[in-house]
Amino acid sequence: MIHEEVSELQVSYGDVEEAASRLEGHARRTPVFTSGTVEERTESRVFFKCESFQRAGAFKFRGAFNALSRLPEEQQRRGVLAYSSGNHAQAIALSGRLLEIPTTVVMPGDAPEVKLRATEGYGAEVVRYDRQVTNREELGARISSERGLSVVPPYDHPDIVAGAGTAARELFEEVGPLDLLLVCCGGGGLLSGSALAARALSPGCRVVGVEPERADDAARSFRDKTLHTVHNPDTIADGARTPSLGDVTFPLVLRHVDGMATVSEGAILRAMLFLWERMKLVVEPTGALGAAALLEGSVTAPGGRVGVIVSGGNVDLRTAGDLLARAGSAE
Amino acid sequence: MIHEEVSELQVSYGDVEEAASRLEGHARRTPVFTSGTVEERTESRVFFKCESFQRAGAFKFRGAFNALSRLPEEQQRRGVLAYSSGNHAQAIALSGRLLEIPTTVVMPGDAPEVKLRATEGYGAEVVRYDRQVTNREELGARISSERGLSVVPPYDHPDIVAGAGTAARELFEEVGPLDLLLVCCGGGGLLSGSALAARALSPGCRVVGVEPERADDAARSFRDKTLHTVHNPDTIADGARTPSLGDVTFPLVLRHVDGMATVSEGAILRAMLFLWERMKLVVEPTGALGAAALLEGSVTAPGGRVGVIVSGGNVDLRTAGDLLARAGSAE
Repeated sequence: MIHEEVSELQVSYGDVEEAASRLEGHARRTPVFTSGTVEERTESRVFFKCESFQRAGAFKFRGAFNALSRLPEEQQRRGVLAYSSGNHAQAIALSGRLLEIPTTVVMPGDAPEVKLRATEGYGAEVVRYDRQVTNREELGARISSERGLSVVPPYDHPDIVAGAGTAARELFEEVGPLDLLLVCCGGGGLLSGSALAARALSPGCRVVGVEPERADDAARSFRDKTLHTVHNPDTIADGARTPSLGDVTFPLVLRHVDGMATVSEGAILRAMLFLWERMKLVVEPTGALGAAALLEGSVTAPGGRVGVIVSGGNVDLRTAGDLLARAGSAE
Repeated sequence: MIHEEVSELQVSYGDVEEAASRLEGHARRTPVFTSGTVEERTESRVFFKCESFQRAGAFKFRGAFNALSRLPEEQQRRGVLAYSSGNHAQAIALSGRLLEIPTTVVMPGDAPEVKLRATEGYGAEVVRYDRQVTNREELGARISSERGLSVVPPYDHPDIVAGAGTAARELFEEVGPLDLLLVCCGGGGLLSGSALAARALSPGCRVVGVEPERADDAARSFRDKTLHTVHNPDTIADGARTPSLGDVTFPLVLRHVDGMATVSEGAILRAMLFLWERMKLVVEPTGALGAAALLEGSVTAPGGRVGVIVSGGNVDLRTAGDLLARAGSAE
């Protein structure tokens, strides 16, 4: 399928603005960090927008709260269902608690334990499935139809994209125009929302999405203008294991994103280690994708101003030692 | 020895103010974090002042930069020597680089590798010694006399105390008066500096120092008004392994601090895990002491406003997995 029609774009920057108003007083305005070491190494000013400090530990809260806020009252009363590898789950669970909407979350059995516990802790009912044998969309559709629940998809929905775009909006508001914005890419919700904000607030800014090499469906889709998919890619960046861009996000990515980059597993681990050790930021593998592309030199803006969206910090610390040992040996 | 004379107090809040001016534009104004989970659990408003994000990863930069700035030009030219288990070392090394003062650092051979590498990275000459057989003060005195270097002690110096106090000063400026301020205690520099700031900016605030149970020399000294010491205490909080309070800090602690608390090794690990996992903050064991006392319920202020100084984030991530596994099993 070829996406070239303006009419297919289901989200505009106005939607991001409206989402920002809705999130006011509910989402955290997350801090922006800088590092002298990064600036020396990349010869650019670099601003890390740390959504790891967002409520529930990731940018996902922005889209989830926005989407749940906009549901009609009757649907809010019946409740919502989400399927998620983790961060969307927690975001939906917490948003549901804040808005008094019952939530059910369909979650792979091998999701990081920390995400599972947090989701239940926020009061959601968790339904687990085996990623190898069950299609989560089918399972979610069955449960939601049985129980009359509204499905809130993890990224492919206009309200989710608009909410996600508010993080980049805050970054531009705080630091002004940029030359380059690096955004991790799973299903493309954060990437397309960020690109909408960049187009409106910093028109000259190059927006580049970053994926793991092992889950490069969006990079191939972007290049070929045809939707490619991956199936259970073997990457530590669990937030980027999504099978493909979606009907909402793919056209937005094609229209507003300037390029895609991929990084190796070793680069992701090295970036994580750097962010932890030098910047004292607990960042999950997916959250380190943008930093990885910059620190490895695959996407740079020498002499320029660079923004990096650090998408989340929900990493299972009981396995972190292994990851970090691998990062050490990968150096 | 009994310390009760006002004349023995070598630092006043005015010195903290002057240090703050000197640090302007050099030290980072570190962010203050909050956590809904902590507030629910402790039934109080809690503000974490995160010196883990300070330059060189700990509050120590404040004192080191202040002390080096105040050295006469001739002494600056010849250079300085510091002995330190780690954070003071990095702070001196970085301050020396910024002020163009040559630095030599005497460091125990078992100091965390991350601190050692960072100290060398900032351009200091590192001299290692065996903590079990060598007295670092004697070694430092010998080298400094041979080379004509000025010794900058890690905590027991008025300029170090005054610099350290600027962190609490920023906290009060940002969040207003508090009912309780929790500060980790090794040699008492951060604690006495923080207490000076509290007395001036929030006179009703109870200031409590927190030590590991296994290195409780300051708690005993405070109780008995007599200086107690510990020798190489077996605690993961390496910043609190200092043998005792000092001539400068002990009188200040006796005069301005309201109480001392101690926490178990398990409590330190659980607090570290909480700060990492729930608040996404990379904090070293010593940096988690204040949070440990609060989260364990040993010092509380129900219904009140609490400040916690998170002193640093320089933990060796290659050993973090072990620590965190212990934290998990200690739950």
